[in-house]
Amino acid sequence: MSKKLWETAPHLALRAGANFDLAGLDRSSTPGFDGDKDDGKDRMEERAELLNELQERLFAAGKHGAKESVLLVIQGLDTAGKGGIVRHVMGMVDPQGVAMASFGVPTKEELSHHYLWRVRRELPEPGKIGVFDRSHYEDVLVARVDELVEEEVWRKRYDEINRFEQKIVDSGTTIIKVALMCSKEEQAGRILERIERPDKRWKHNPGDLDTRAEWDDYQEAYQDVFRLTSTDYAPWYVVPADKKWYSRVAVTELLTQALIDIDPQWPKPRWHVDVQKRRLFETVDPDIVDELEQAVAEQVADAEDDHGDYLKTKEKVAELATVDDGDRAPTVEESEEDEALSNVRTMAAASTGVGKGAKDQDKDNKSKKSKKDKKSKKSKKDKKSKKKKGKGAKN
Amino acid sequence: MSKKLWETAPHLALRAGANFDLAGLDRSSTPGFDGDKDDGKDRMEERAELLNELQERLFAAGKHGAKESVLLVIQGLDTAGKGGIVRHVMGMVDPQGVAMASFGVPTKEELSHHYLWRVRRELPEPGKIGVFDRSHYEDVLVARVDELVEEEVWRKRYDEINRFEQKIVDSGTTIIKVALMCSKEEQAGRILERIERPDKRWKHNPGDLDTRAEWDDYQEAYQDVFRLTSTDYAPWYVVPADKKWYSRVAVTELLTQALIDIDPQWPKPRWHVDVQKRRLFETVDPDIVDELEQAVAEQVADAEDDHGDYLKTKEKVAELATVDDGDRAPTVEESEEDEALSNVRTMAAASTGVGKGAKDQDKDNKSKKSKKDKKSKKSKKDKKSKKKKGKGAKN
Repeated sequence: MSKKLWETAPHLALRAGANFDLAGLDRSSTPGFDGDKDDGKDRMEERAELLNELQERLFAAGKHGAKESVLLVIQGLDTAGKGGIVRHVMGMVDPQGVAMASFGVPTKEELSHHYLWRVRRELPEPGKIGVFDRSHYEDVLVARVDELVEEEVWRKRYDEINRFEQKIVDSGTTIIKVALMCSKEEQAGRILERIERPDKRWKHNPGDLDTRAEWDDYQEAYQDVFRLTSTDYAPWYVVPADKKWYSRVAVTELLTQALIDIDPQWPKPRWHVDVQKRRLFETVDPDIVDELEQAVAEQVADAEDDHGDYLKTKEKVAELATVDDGDRAPTVEESEEDEALSNVRTMAAASTGVGKGAKDQDKDNKSKKSKKDKKSKKSKKDKKSKKKKGKGAKN
Repeated sequence: MSKKLWETAPHLALRAGANFDLAGLDRSSTPGFDGDKDDGKDRMEERAELLNELQERLFAAGKHGAKESVLLVIQGLDTAGKGGIVRHVMGMVDPQGVAMASFGVPTKEELSHHYLWRVRRELPEPGKIGVFDRSHYEDVLVARVDELVEEEVWRKRYDEINRFEQKIVDSGTTIIKVALMCSKEEQAGRILERIERPDKRWKHNPGDLDTRAEWDDYQEAYQDVFRLTSTDYAPWYVVPADKKWYSRVAVTELLTQALIDIDPQWPKPRWHVDVQKRRLFETVDPDIVDELEQAVAEQVADAEDDHGDYLKTKEKVAELATVDDGDRAPTVEESEEDEALSNVRTMAAASTGVGKGAKDQDKDNKSKKSKKDKKSKKSKKDKKSKKKKGKGAKN
């Protein structure tokens, strides 16, 4: 299929820059994706194999000393499709590599600690893809809208969250923050469905109607989240969510691109192949050794073919990340669109430890870097990350 | 498809009775399944929808006060395919409903506690499907073969494990214990593949060759596990594992049958539909209410159709459980085969709290019950469980 469905890579089309304007977001749109529901499903099937290998590599590297992990933070109001993302996107990869955590109303024990305490405990181990269904952002969303704490308390949290995430990124975790944004009308239909369908009723909570009544306050609170915590090292991706298929394919792409950026490598063995083979054959009937060797030679050849396919596919998908002339997230002033973009490439640099807080990022937006500049930064990072990986495997 | 692939339901074909003989097991066989690899894959695809609904119902019920959960214990020597079961079988259902735990070499902290301590902490919450990649059985396998503890210590553990599992079952958890048994030749090929394939090397541990050298001791230890801990409330299913596709489809069927036995119901709402609708419509543009109601009416109709399909499929699959004239796990004496079977139906009764220890089970084997008898027991349990569920939903 030569159809170019993503005019723009999703992390370019969906990333919330400093001037992101939530009110301007068309929630039934499909930014960057020039296809329909069936195209979306095809795309997800197409990605399955690549995503699986990337995930397994991340897991394998993590088992052998590499530090990298991924944290997918999923936010959105009730019925926005958070559960569907977990089921349909995370359901594509090996459950052994996924660490789920969902953050509901805090328990008594959780309330007796700092609000980041329960979050810290659920951060993914090296090699894992952590998934947060809601997160520490509830502490500047529901806590703000429902006035659970004083304004001076939640106001301080944005910076605190930025510092917290900076540390997480520094420790080797790529953070993907996804906000699923559906329209108020669409939410009405989804809530009605939950009320009317016997197999959906268990999901409906009368409290969701109270939250819905605070719609505008939540939009404002989300706008501030994007304005204050979409950093270069942990940016927000605001995903229009009226079309469930779109939000799923978008998150699939975000996850795939993040893993390609990490570029996890199969660990090198700490043992010698010939020694292991000799020891193995001591336990095998000598008559079948030839047969075994032949069978495995075929498997190795197949694996080499697969590896070639993997490299080609990965390259092709990575290329998307260099296209930057498509749709983009809406910003407050049309003329400032470029600024939102100028930030995108520095995201890659963040994991080398040069990430900055939200305020510094604002400054960065003002100084536009040439594409060349950004590219050289990226390739430097690639080398560094490969070096680190090789070391990790020896630990 | 009218092709009857399972001549016998897998929990009848694979269940280890009191006289199960591991040495007599053909590890490349496909007990109960009259099909090839493609048939096996088809069967898994065919089960996906049913399994998904069963899992979601279990999860939903658990969220609303029902106690039921499932614990899948996966045992097997290195390369037996434990990880593949997790990836391919558990990968079929929503990751939100699965709680993974793997038990490797105990950590210092774990060693400072009773051997069941780390297991207890990972038991599934209500509504979840817990999966153990290795388990407390390592404490009567590696601990015994490698003489990590005195014989008098591990000898006591079988009874202790039975009592432990009895409590778990009493609390509402259905335990499915699966032992993946591959042949020594097949293991050689798989280890060689791990040594030779660059993308598999991370899985090879030189220690696996030491374990392989103790093959016969492990077979003996496994034989004792089956002999002493295959209780009526938590039986062992010994799965020939030379054909990976077979072990995957077999575990899929075991899980499906266990969930059908639980028969989880959608929770009844604690709120009134009309009240909720009225409250919702207060927040909706009056002009679109009709449109919303119409759209949802269609969804409700679709859901009703789906529900009809679900009931039919479930019934069809449940019927398999009544066929008992096919292949069966090998037993020490041919004439004692029937005894292994007589136990099967009492498994269903276990969750009502009448489970017994391994010794009592032996007695049960001697007194054969009529099919009629067992059926009446089952339907009684069904009623009881439905009653419990209704109550749960109101909590």
